[in-house]
Amino acid sequence: MPHIPLPDHLPGITGLLEYRLDTAAPIRELTQLLLRGESTLSTGERELIAALVSSRNCTAFCEAAHTKAADLLLGETETAKAIKVDVETAPVSEKMKALLQIAVLTQQSGRAVTPEAVERARAAGATDREIHDTVLIAAFFCLCNRYVDGLATMTHHDEDLYRQRAAHVAEAGYVDGETYFVKQS
Amino acid sequence: MPHIPLPDHLPGITGLLEYRLDTAAPIRELTQLLLRGESTLSTGERELIAALVSSRNCTAFCEAAHTKAADLLLGETETAKAIKVDVETAPVSEKMKALLQIAVLTQQSGRAVTPEAVERARAAGATDREIHDTVLIAAFFCLCNRYVDGLATMTHHDEDLYRQRAAHVAEAGYVDGETYFVKQS
Repeated sequence: MPHIPLPDHLPGITGLLEYRLDTAAPIRELTQLLLRGESTLSTGERELIAALVSSRNCTAFCEAAHTKAADLLLGETETAKAIKVDVETAPVSEKMKALLQIAVLTQQSGRAVTPEAVERARAAGATDREIHDTVLIAAFFCLCNRYVDGLATMTHHDEDLYRQRAAHVAEAGYVDGETYFVKQS
Repeated sequence: MPHIPLPDHLPGITGLLEYRLDTAAPIRELTQLLLRGESTLSTGERELIAALVSSRNCTAFCEAAHTKAADLLLGETETAKAIKVDVETAPVSEKMKALLQIAVLTQQSGRAVTPEAVERARAAGATDREIHDTVLIAAFFCLCNRYVDGLATMTHHDEDLYRQRAAHVAEAGYVDGETYFVKQS
């Protein structure tokens, strides 16, 4: 049961975004900019970072939502599954392996990100901006995951719901798309 | 040395907010809403939450900045110092002790926030909104701390600079006030 009264039909962050609307606006905007804004990382690659960090934080709602988004954008379900088992053997580029490892370190602590981890990414072709964005996306999901779990929000376990939501977000973006469950009710 | 090129004179998050301006806007807005927006928690109490979480994450820039802000708003320097040593013996109300413990748990992991910790806060008079805001402020500083440390930003060690900045932010707020170091240069 959530620690504060939240609507039953709004799982994970969606109920929280309706609970306090003024803070929801910059949270939605930051999600959209980081995951859908202009970037040399594809939207699928950025959803992989979000899914991996959420998985490491054991936040079921965010992990399911961003895994389904990555699956949809990549057109297959193997990669998101594989990075959560072992980044090094997953079917992604050397650059993405290095960036995903930076995300894993950021999830542990900002201080865990070593010059060596950054150098590995740079040697594999990552730009400063890609390194910056990887750290910021990982840090942002440390916020989202703690917000969702810290208030013990409800999690849906029906995979189809996350798949439908991912399709809706792919079309509408995160500013309007995060209201998917609200509109369904 | 920072992991990406950042201006020498802009420490902590201030250089990062200049590095990517589009994501800086919602980050500044969220800081302002959480720490200065309407709330039944005083601005000093909210800065205590920010200082404590930053201290637990060992993020020197954020800890110094928000400790000095709390000191200024509370009109004394003992409370911020005391909560970082031991929340239970610090000179704050029972309600603030319970909320600060929720912040400490959120810093560890969202899943660490127990029904008992929330019940303690409620029994001491905390409202749902105060519990919500405590979790969100703590989660937000887990973002900020990881952003600042994950890119190895520079930290000033001159306490006077943080004191001056706190005075500037107290007047200008976090949307304009976070540009303090930029304007000084």
